[in-house]
Amino acid sequence: MSIKPILFEDGVLKMIDQRLLPVEEVWLSYTDYRSVAEAIVTMVVRGAPAIGVAAAYGAAFGAGAIEVSDSDAFLAEFDVVCKHLAATRPTAVNLFWALERMQECARDNANLPLDALKARLLEEAVAIGEADEQINRNMGAHGQVLVPDGARVLTHCNAGALATGGFGTALGVIRAAVEAGKKVAVLADETRPWLQGARLTTWELQRDNIPVTLICDNMAGYMMSQGEIDCVIVGADRIAANGDTANKIGTYSVAVLAKEHGLPFYVAAPTSTVDLNLTDGSKIPIEERSEREVTHVGEKQLAPTGITVRNPAFDVTPSRYISAIITEHGVAQGDYVSALAALVAQGR
Amino acid sequence: MSIKPILFEDGVLKMIDQRLLPVEEVWLSYTDYRSVAEAIVTMVVRGAPAIGVAAAYGAAFGAGAIEVSDSDAFLAEFDVVCKHLAATRPTAVNLFWALERMQECARDNANLPLDALKARLLEEAVAIGEADEQINRNMGAHGQVLVPDGARVLTHCNAGALATGGFGTALGVIRAAVEAGKKVAVLADETRPWLQGARLTTWELQRDNIPVTLICDNMAGYMMSQGEIDCVIVGADRIAANGDTANKIGTYSVAVLAKEHGLPFYVAAPTSTVDLNLTDGSKIPIEERSEREVTHVGEKQLAPTGITVRNPAFDVTPSRYISAIITEHGVAQGDYVSALAALVAQGR
Repeated sequence: MSIKPILFEDGVLKMIDQRLLPVEEVWLSYTDYRSVAEAIVTMVVRGAPAIGVAAAYGAAFGAGAIEVSDSDAFLAEFDVVCKHLAATRPTAVNLFWALERMQECARDNANLPLDALKARLLEEAVAIGEADEQINRNMGAHGQVLVPDGARVLTHCNAGALATGGFGTALGVIRAAVEAGKKVAVLADETRPWLQGARLTTWELQRDNIPVTLICDNMAGYMMSQGEIDCVIVGADRIAANGDTANKIGTYSVAVLAKEHGLPFYVAAPTSTVDLNLTDGSKIPIEERSEREVTHVGEKQLAPTGITVRNPAFDVTPSRYISAIITEHGVAQGDYVSALAALVAQGR
Repeated sequence: MSIKPILFEDGVLKMIDQRLLPVEEVWLSYTDYRSVAEAIVTMVVRGAPAIGVAAAYGAAFGAGAIEVSDSDAFLAEFDVVCKHLAATRPTAVNLFWALERMQECARDNANLPLDALKARLLEEAVAIGEADEQINRNMGAHGQVLVPDGARVLTHCNAGALATGGFGTALGVIRAAVEAGKKVAVLADETRPWLQGARLTTWELQRDNIPVTLICDNMAGYMMSQGEIDCVIVGADRIAANGDTANKIGTYSVAVLAKEHGLPFYVAAPTSTVDLNLTDGSKIPIEERSEREVTHVGEKQLAPTGITVRNPAFDVTPSRYISAIITEHGVAQGDYVSALAALVAQGR
């Protein structure tokens, strides 16, 4: 049973603090939208689907605290709440997808008495959260077919249970392959600077007794050249209409290496990650995060004081490097424009 | 004036402790060969040419402490000293090159009285150390021609003054380009797990006022895709007769990325790094270092307890990815087998 990083109990949102894993397991509690937004910014919660779920709860909390007398005023205030939550991180589209779904729910139910509307919005957040694990299980069922028995799978960052409502996207495909009786071994890139691979992917796979070996990001090419990797599976933060995929920084390098070694490179993501408004990946905004993430690990200083640093948090892998995109409604291959449009339509 | 990381003063070898840079500048003193060997193993001193220089001094110290009465016994004991020093690190060939040169010197001068022979060996170590900076300056003169004015140069690991007797190999080429009046900006891969790029390359370039920007290893592909890199220059730990080059882990990935983006990929190394005994790179031994280098930064734990780790310290870049190999005797391009053999012959 994989970890569920986001729980809703007795009106309280509880999230495992992903900044402290794997050394400490601390759960933090949230009941207001500003704190949820702060948790997204500071990466208590991270991973595109998990950010969407957290933002939905944040929106529900924000709605619950609105004190007005009519629905127009409510919708205006709710828009402020959603805009605040949307301003937390720019790249993962699931954030905007979840908030849009919450706003649609508010508009659709604007005729309800305000207390009922607030209750309806909380139900919607719960529904978004609870649906996510099943989405990932469906994705796993479609994707595990691509994973051969005995496969040694490289993954980058954490696209696992911790990045979602449960089960995981890339790691969900691996879990589904294991549940289907296949022997699978995972190689986890440590994923500098935030070390999602070293800290999170290893932790959740170790917990589930799935064999995992940690490497530094710069070792993936060597492992491929030694014939020690059979395929790559990663998650996604935003997928453009043509299949170009934004994901954690370093994903693009892994994709180029996979192509050079003739290895399949798979992306696993829910259709909520597909942004049909963007024709290609060049339009995806890339978040740059603080220099300190690169220059320090905890309090330990790694680089000279005053040094110039770049810290793009994501990169874009052009779809020509991607062998298939695995979603909860099926697998897109070849002509991504029509395949992705069809899969997204199925979700509506 | 670039830093010289290895000094010999009043019979004492002084080396800057590269484990503590850039936060602390501590010089350690050595007068016996076992301590020098330990300094190489623990990476107080690192970088292929610098390891060669340190080992030469270690051999001279070992020779100085041998107490026997005849030259045969001396040569036998000296062989034990050299074997101990040779067993420190397997990949960089400069170590074996320097020790072989010391042993050749011992054999050639075996007819001298023992005290004179010991003095001769110390002179040889000093000569190896002092020659290294001039070798790098010559390499820089040949190599800087390849660096255009305004170039943004990616480098991996530290092939700088700190890796040599002074001036540096890859960074020596950059320094020579700057001295020739060109504007050059360096991008430094941080180079996990030991962070030679983050800790050392940034430190020595900042000290010399050469513009440097630090990135994580997994950002190089993104920077190339954004058109922010013009060429790559790296050092080498061992170059096979056909040009296949062992260098710090991650170099191969950078070479593949450079090829994918149509960027020149240069290797800068002295001819003492060329191992004509090996026909190709598949025969170069790759050192695997401790798991702890990956799982911890200082005392800070980054990965779950008990996790499996791979830590190959080097990889091999096949010569087809290498645009040119820059040595102190000239630049090898195209047919590396004949070009490298000719350059090595010039050094004899």
